[in-house]
Amino acid sequence: MSHAWLKTMKLYVLLTQEHCRIPILEAARQVIRGGADVIQLREKRLPDGELLALGRRLRVMASEAGVGFVMNDRADLARLVEADGVHLGQEDLPPAAARRSLGPDRVVGLSTHTPEQARATPDAGVDYIGVGPVFPTATRGYTQGVGLDYIRAAAQVTPLPLVAIGGITLERAPEVAAALPPGRGAVAVCAAILSAPDIEAATAAFKERLAVR
Amino acid sequence: MSHAWLKTMKLYVLLTQEHCRIPILEAARQVIRGGADVIQLREKRLPDGELLALGRRLRVMASEAGVGFVMNDRADLARLVEADGVHLGQEDLPPAAARRSLGPDRVVGLSTHTPEQARATPDAGVDYIGVGPVFPTATRGYTQGVGLDYIRAAAQVTPLPLVAIGGITLERAPEVAAALPPGRGAVAVCAAILSAPDIEAATAAFKERLAVR
Repeated sequence: MSHAWLKTMKLYVLLTQEHCRIPILEAARQVIRGGADVIQLREKRLPDGELLALGRRLRVMASEAGVGFVMNDRADLARLVEADGVHLGQEDLPPAAARRSLGPDRVVGLSTHTPEQARATPDAGVDYIGVGPVFPTATRGYTQGVGLDYIRAAAQVTPLPLVAIGGITLERAPEVAAALPPGRGAVAVCAAILSAPDIEAATAAFKERLAVR
Repeated sequence: MSHAWLKTMKLYVLLTQEHCRIPILEAARQVIRGGADVIQLREKRLPDGELLALGRRLRVMASEAGVGFVMNDRADLARLVEADGVHLGQEDLPPAAARRSLGPDRVVGLSTHTPEQARATPDAGVDYIGVGPVFPTATRGYTQGVGLDYIRAAAQVTPLPLVAIGGITLERAPEVAAALPPGRGAVAVCAAILSAPDIEAATAAFKERLAVR
């Protein structure tokens, strides 16, 4: 797999039913139509059987649209549904263990919150890193963000693509994008898109602001 | 792997920190000393990284003692820690999907609650089945059990080893064991052992009652 999206992505959307007023598959359709470059399935509470079924549906949808598709946390499910990759948190499986479940040809993303964590990632078999939470975010209950400075600091210590995440609204998206190193990273959005009255329009609005940077 | 325990097991103990007054690893040590034939790690809420680390410790412990070791739900973790197998619920990954993560040489167990579910198991690539909840049990919030009749019914429709589970106390263990087909199955215990003041003694008491059947 080439994973071309890894080098060109600007808008990375996290999908979680909790934030949607409509079924998650319909939200995914709108997010894709709106121009997301990558979608991530992030459901923490579904039974594995349902998560597998949902992952399979999203895999088809993403492939048809030519967007990247990543599963949160679960390398085994990412492999079973043939997702493009898995996104890991610091408390999930270590990247090397996840890689064993996932196989060699898929992408491993890892959330980082400090320069020390970011510095360790190139040697850990990671393909991109999350940097955040940039701002406080209700999605994960973070009351304090690491700010734009952490994006710049992380860019200094790793050559990997960065995905800035956490409390990023449409208004703040341009300044976040400006803090990313040119051509190396994306802005991740969850609640600001999924809870919008028109998910497709909200996605398109983000995409437009990020495309002109 | 021979998985000899699959054919000889009488006492199958589920380990979950929630029911223990002592650290789960110490509880595991006592359960093994008390004579469990198989231990299962069942933690629903730990981050994957901790679950992996815990699984590795239990793997070593079980190997040294020559008892079986099964991970609940997660075939990927079972493979990573080289557990003997995985135990799946009806809402977990389907057995065929779990088998792909797990590899061919390990055991897949599946919980069943109806004769229809039990009947489907030999063709599903399952190596043993759980039958229960035999009695109402607070562990899973079941207010009604399927009773001893379901054990007998399941034995009629599958040739696989049976693991009777759910609300089984020391007093009731002999009647449960008597309902199992001779030499084909075990009694599974969780709370009645883990919440006992002396876990090793409680395990040994179960083992003694089950050995004489």
